[in-house]
Amino acid sequence: MVSTINWKDSKVSILDQTKLPHEVIYIDCTNYLTVVDCIKRLSIRGAPAIGIAAAMGVAIGCQDIHASNFEEFIKELQPVYKALVDSRPTAVNIQWAVNRMDAMLLKNRDKTILELKELTIKESQDILEEDIRINRQIGEWGAQFIKDGDIILTHCNAGSLATGGYGTATAPIRVAHEQGKIIHVIADETRPILQGARLTAWELMQDNIPVTLITDNTAGALMKKGEINLCIVGTDRTVKNGDVANKIGTYSVAVLASVHNIPFYVAAPISSIDFNLTHGDQIPIEERCPEEVTNISGICPIAPVDVMVKNIAFDVTPAKYITAIITEKGAFKPTDLHILSDKSIDFTKYRIM
Amino acid sequence: MVSTINWKDSKVSILDQTKLPHEVIYIDCTNYLTVVDCIKRLSIRGAPAIGIAAAMGVAIGCQDIHASNFEEFIKELQPVYKALVDSRPTAVNIQWAVNRMDAMLLKNRDKTILELKELTIKESQDILEEDIRINRQIGEWGAQFIKDGDIILTHCNAGSLATGGYGTATAPIRVAHEQGKIIHVIADETRPILQGARLTAWELMQDNIPVTLITDNTAGALMKKGEINLCIVGTDRTVKNGDVANKIGTYSVAVLASVHNIPFYVAAPISSIDFNLTHGDQIPIEERCPEEVTNISGICPIAPVDVMVKNIAFDVTPAKYITAIITEKGAFKPTDLHILSDKSIDFTKYRIM
Repeated sequence: MVSTINWKDSKVSILDQTKLPHEVIYIDCTNYLTVVDCIKRLSIRGAPAIGIAAAMGVAIGCQDIHASNFEEFIKELQPVYKALVDSRPTAVNIQWAVNRMDAMLLKNRDKTILELKELTIKESQDILEEDIRINRQIGEWGAQFIKDGDIILTHCNAGSLATGGYGTATAPIRVAHEQGKIIHVIADETRPILQGARLTAWELMQDNIPVTLITDNTAGALMKKGEINLCIVGTDRTVKNGDVANKIGTYSVAVLASVHNIPFYVAAPISSIDFNLTHGDQIPIEERCPEEVTNISGICPIAPVDVMVKNIAFDVTPAKYITAIITEKGAFKPTDLHILSDKSIDFTKYRIM
Repeated sequence: MVSTINWKDSKVSILDQTKLPHEVIYIDCTNYLTVVDCIKRLSIRGAPAIGIAAAMGVAIGCQDIHASNFEEFIKELQPVYKALVDSRPTAVNIQWAVNRMDAMLLKNRDKTILELKELTIKESQDILEEDIRINRQIGEWGAQFIKDGDIILTHCNAGSLATGGYGTATAPIRVAHEQGKIIHVIADETRPILQGARLTAWELMQDNIPVTLITDNTAGALMKKGEINLCIVGTDRTVKNGDVANKIGTYSVAVLASVHNIPFYVAAPISSIDFNLTHGDQIPIEERCPEEVTNISGICPIAPVDVMVKNIAFDVTPAKYITAIITEKGAFKPTDLHILSDKSIDFTKYRIM
């Protein structure tokens, strides 16, 4: 599997996904501002992956800090935290990663500055490795929903490229494939940035998982013809009531699936669940520049100059359209998701098996 | 209004829509094969426009025929008819136009060959002029459904560029605009050929009708937010039971509109209604080459080389999702459409007013 992000020779090495599938090029980030820029430019994207990038961004930001004590060190870190958290608003993983790095530092306040710097590198590595482990677990829990012969629609890229590896939405697909089930993936191309065409199709082809590319507006017609058996997507932020923010177009896929009685699953590592928000309407939704719509890949103009554009990057799918949310702790009904935030409840009783 | 197609100096002059919105270039067709090629290459597209192109294709095909009598003349015409009818399978207008030209010739079998040649030019001109008149009538019947302040979603281009002029889906929009209603159009970009981005946005901007461009997968999210009041689309072929074939993605828009209780209208000149077919499943659906999906505008590759692609050009929207079908004879419930094929019925009683 291609590496999405790694710590290498005191640098954060990020696969530049804006160049895929034509070129496989890594960007070496020697400071946190380059990491922030990679996140903003979508060189790295996908909720889990930008969480890892944020953790490594904190780690590399730490290396440049000159501080004589812990308080000074933490104070110097604040602009690093802020730049990372502000880089993209919708995914909760950046905030989650920054909080985790900060909590780790606080727990180790008695250590030397040099030790703290080493610890941030180690913690960001741990986050990367845990992510891959978690995705594998999501795959195990999710594969039960995939039958031999199934045709599976996915939207955008919640694949290995959106994570440390293995993917979230692609994890059940990869496990089913490993189990020897004959499956076929339909990848929505996912305008405007075309993550489905550029990334999902590419990474599945690398691993010899059969995949067919369609335009986003074809999914409904295939559902009507009975040519989709289930849908699996990722999420940028899922909230306590089971509402799911994900790439623009996810909502339409979920509504269409519901009308055609097709199960619709969301693969959500717990790091992408924001238990502080109770309703999808509270999720900040990023709007991006018109040029993403009017100039494909930044080089191919497809619309009149100065046309007005509405470029909403995400939408929110209400819980009622979601068959199950698949986490590393099991698959749950969206309305049961909140039990994961209550340590007094035995969540295993709520698992869908 | 820009001319889509015209007979000029013994040639068929066709606006090359593959070059829009960047260049306004006309292709001069001096023989029917060039007309066929224009239709296949989508230099001219839209059900009414390719009907007109077919009529003019017959007319220019006639000019080159050397025949000594009527039977020979008609025999020589058969390959012209066939090439035109075979150029695109879904829209019924090509067959309709060829039938009309043929019927006109049969009615004038006593005329000289020279006179017949002149008559074909005149008949194709008549078809063009009638088309514009019919569209204007569709606009008058359809504008009643548009209120001051409405935001109107349209898919693909059923505008003046898809017709002889004025458009079908855009006709009610243009009339409402002329009536002084404040309206705003949301144009789906309409992958893969991007007729919404390249053509609809462009032609509405030419006429100062406010328009905002979105990716196809954004429509559902806008509906959910209450930012779409109604939808109007065109049709390539509508059948007796009110099922509507139109550009891929129309079905998804209709289902989403239905779920959000948003009225969904189809503008359909009677030439695009095929009363010989009783059900949408009988409509032949064109599949086109993968390159339309993988190479935007033929120059911008966006997917892995050799990826499998499903490129269905049209889908069928069942009558149950359609609020009304707007023809030049009035707007009708889809289930009432069949009365237009029965001369013994007073269709005016079925009009939605």
